[in-house]
Amino acid sequence: MSSFSVSSTDMEAIALGGAFLATGGGGDPYIGKLMAQAAIAAHGPVTVIPPDAVADDALCVPVCMMGAPTVMLEKLPNGREAHEALEQLEAYLGRKADALVCIEAGGLNSTIPYAVAAATGLPLVDGDGMGRAFPELQMVSFTMHDIKATPMVLADDKGNSSVLKAISNRWTERLARCQTVEMGGAALVALYPMTGAEMKRGILRNTMSLIKEIGETIASERRANRNPAEALIRRLDGRKLFTGRVVDIERRTEGGFARGKAIFKGMDEDEGRTFTVNFQNEYLIASDDQDRLLAVTPDLICGVDADGGLPVTTEQLRFGLAVTMIGLACDPQWSTPAGLDLVGPGYFGYPHDYVPIKELSR
Amino acid sequence: MSSFSVSSTDMEAIALGGAFLATGGGGDPYIGKLMAQAAIAAHGPVTVIPPDAVADDALCVPVCMMGAPTVMLEKLPNGREAHEALEQLEAYLGRKADALVCIEAGGLNSTIPYAVAAATGLPLVDGDGMGRAFPELQMVSFTMHDIKATPMVLADDKGNSSVLKAISNRWTERLARCQTVEMGGAALVALYPMTGAEMKRGILRNTMSLIKEIGETIASERRANRNPAEALIRRLDGRKLFTGRVVDIERRTEGGFARGKAIFKGMDEDEGRTFTVNFQNEYLIASDDQDRLLAVTPDLICGVDADGGLPVTTEQLRFGLAVTMIGLACDPQWSTPAGLDLVGPGYFGYPHDYVPIKELSR
Repeated sequence: MSSFSVSSTDMEAIALGGAFLATGGGGDPYIGKLMAQAAIAAHGPVTVIPPDAVADDALCVPVCMMGAPTVMLEKLPNGREAHEALEQLEAYLGRKADALVCIEAGGLNSTIPYAVAAATGLPLVDGDGMGRAFPELQMVSFTMHDIKATPMVLADDKGNSSVLKAISNRWTERLARCQTVEMGGAALVALYPMTGAEMKRGILRNTMSLIKEIGETIASERRANRNPAEALIRRLDGRKLFTGRVVDIERRTEGGFARGKAIFKGMDEDEGRTFTVNFQNEYLIASDDQDRLLAVTPDLICGVDADGGLPVTTEQLRFGLAVTMIGLACDPQWSTPAGLDLVGPGYFGYPHDYVPIKELSR
Repeated sequence: MSSFSVSSTDMEAIALGGAFLATGGGGDPYIGKLMAQAAIAAHGPVTVIPPDAVADDALCVPVCMMGAPTVMLEKLPNGREAHEALEQLEAYLGRKADALVCIEAGGLNSTIPYAVAAATGLPLVDGDGMGRAFPELQMVSFTMHDIKATPMVLADDKGNSSVLKAISNRWTERLARCQTVEMGGAALVALYPMTGAEMKRGILRNTMSLIKEIGETIASERRANRNPAEALIRRLDGRKLFTGRVVDIERRTEGGFARGKAIFKGMDEDEGRTFTVNFQNEYLIASDDQDRLLAVTPDLICGVDADGGLPVTTEQLRFGLAVTMIGLACDPQWSTPAGLDLVGPGYFGYPHDYVPIKELSR
């Protein structure tokens, strides 16, 4: 892959593709898109570079939002907090960043880094730490490569900030989570400062270009009055899990997360069947009325509106909405024992074992 | 006042005097005493110096424990965390501390700084930020002199730490409190870094020597088989509020604090009367059965065991215990409007107005 330039117009596709790959979570990328578009208008386009274009001794820094994305819709970030978090981390390290990284390939956090990249003139690396969205900060490939989340900076909209150092990435999650809640439910953070060599070892590659391509596919299919589900399944080697209408939703807030399940009544070729999707911020497990698994975390479960074709987040699920659920194989790093410890069904409290989607769909 | 040296033996009196001046809270200084005695045994005695002996441009740093003191009894600090918190703050500021300060004159936090002073060889200033104990970190005279609590370092026993910067001392309290809870209920902290000039403006003077003298008075009266209450009242120009036996206690944990009230049946000259003491970590309001106020925060309410003569904390109150309650006038800084905003009865949610104890006892 080679470098490419991202304009304000490109951010439309990137927001759309990010919403799809976010597997129902990650927050609506709308705010992040506006922040990125404002920054690109002021400072010019963003350059996305392949991981191998980064020097081994470069300083690479992921920047993102932490907390409840819904909070950001009511408490708009001023566009400076993420940049400030980066600057404070640079001050702490006594060194300027050479490249920015996305912590997750989905939702708000696949758009906010573009805003910071435009404002700072830094390139953004084509890749991320999840290849999708996950709810907790230790759930990144970097953790499997012994890259530490700290020193980490949190900054809020009021001017409060903190620099964390923790003995593990799980501890970083705990200490950062409570501060995020106290800061009003959302904070902008800079974390996992790493060398270029570490980044190249840990990063899940090409996901920024993939997001852009997914977004362009959704947009062009919609322009042609086609639902993008078929095209996405072909492009991503995905599996159609089912198409169905929401007939029941159970939601509860536990430990700052949106947990629950949705029941779907099958439509079209799935007429007469019933499906369940369990979620915690993201869609995590899909099964049918025989309790047969259709897809299970860390494999991706992505929803698109069966009518309009737009990505559907867990928050948007409502009675009567028709959704096509698509399953995608996760990055091979996630299906290792170390990966499943971090993001397998057991970590989220489900009794199921992980079975790769390719085996389930045989 | 002149400088004085504190030996391991002196720490016995300091722990005792600190328990009295803690007004029922501040935690049992026993652990802090052991930490200080171990450090003095290893490194030699501590020098306590008058505030005016510190240069205007010196760096003065309070070190203390934050959180539930009861936790420290089960989760013994390794003796290094407080020192580490100081070192991290020094690293952040790029400058070594010249003198240590006590944040409160009572309980654990009037003994822990001796441990750090012995280990670092730094002098400890004769004074503190409260002249007693209070539960929240913004409740110090330094806040009234616009001295910022941040940058502040928190360190736990596991090796996690954080550097906080906040827009106000109330915000520092909020952000540090949630981290303390997450760190297991207690953290060692270094905060309110200030110049010598700021320290001299804000500090409540001579409280370290006062604590030592109170402890020596309690010890010598006990050796003479006298209850120390009378001698303490004379020395401190205090008022005897009442002597009574605990007949009822209501305790509840709210927002991480031990709130409640104790009812006492009067003894000796108070026979036939009933008294109530409201507390939140510390004793805050004493009243009689006619709802007449006897003493109210920020004035000090200190308890001593009517039999053994030792200081009694709110946690030690139990059915049948006979206690003499002594009221002391607070430092004049606390009875100003700014002081009452920080630590008056209204802040703690009580409907009473502050009336100085000297008026109440007329």
